[in-house]
Amino acid sequence: MDTIGHHYIAEASGCDPNVIGKVESVEQILVRAAEVAGVQVWSISFHRFSPNGVSGVVVISESHLSVHTWPEYGYAALDIFTCGGSAKPEKAVEWALKEFGATNVHITEVTRGLEEEGDRVFFHSIVTWEEELLKRAVNGQRAPARRTQRRRPAPSTGTGRRRTAAKPKR
Amino acid sequence: MDTIGHHYIAEASGCDPNVIGKVESVEQILVRAAEVAGVQVWSISFHRFSPNGVSGVVVISESHLSVHTWPEYGYAALDIFTCGGSAKPEKAVEWALKEFGATNVHITEVTRGLEEEGDRVFFHSIVTWEEELLKRAVNGQRAPARRTQRRRPAPSTGTGRRRTAAKPKR
Repeated sequence: MDTIGHHYIAEASGCDPNVIGKVESVEQILVRAAEVAGVQVWSISFHRFSPNGVSGVVVISESHLSVHTWPEYGYAALDIFTCGGSAKPEKAVEWALKEFGATNVHITEVTRGLEEEGDRVFFHSIVTWEEELLKRAVNGQRAPARRTQRRRPAPSTGTGRRRTAAKPKR
Repeated sequence: MDTIGHHYIAEASGCDPNVIGKVESVEQILVRAAEVAGVQVWSISFHRFSPNGVSGVVVISESHLSVHTWPEYGYAALDIFTCGGSAKPEKAVEWALKEFGATNVHITEVTRGLEEEGDRVFFHSIVTWEEELLKRAVNGQRAPARRTQRRRPAPSTGTGRRRTAAKPKR
């Protein structure tokens, strides 16, 4: 089955408000994430909203990276979508989450532009999981993660062609 | 349960290559889609890639709209993500698909930034469906759709809090 792209959709919680509240730091993290992914940047557009929050997009040759932040909630909605075989979107997601200081994340990976039968009818499939990330250092001590889940997709629950194969982590 | 945003992820097939292959028309459609959604545009960035394809993003106060096209396949990967209660992202999706001339679509609606217990841990939920859209006029006659499915989410198959509630259409 051919695949055109990979799209990671992340809800990042527990982010550092001092990081995700500043347009300069959010832009720097996303641009660096593009470098980590090994993709080519075409345009960068970031904005700060009143009273809080940053929105920004990096358009790349291989699709885009976007983020929208709510520093008052410690929350960032991150999307990293790349096409082609050479990009490393997972590394970019990991980088950005670490830089945001996220302590919890819920991720859905959408495989975009799947074509099963060469009939030019495209669909996508879905794998989703969540992780409690390693706590950041507190008072010089690094608190242990209460629970760290790694990706471990369950068997597909899809019911046929062009169905979403939802694979919740167990 | 509080919700921050709604994100529609669409694989659009059978699109008109003369539309999705031109950066001007793709940009015009996405900007108009933002108007249809009733959102405020902050920045617009569209590019044409060699030998084929257009990528573009419209950053809005309420998040973003993006599209990446493969005219040689009649395929467009469309994302429309809005926050707040006044936006109408569904109408924007419908508008853009119609303008692209899409004949088939596979859509996943991701409810972003769900918070269940006021604990500032955010997750998302998923509803996915597919439609064969009304065929465009051929030789002056409008061919009937072979099958038109409307959204009809099945009961949640989620297994608990912060799980993806995958709701494939049946």
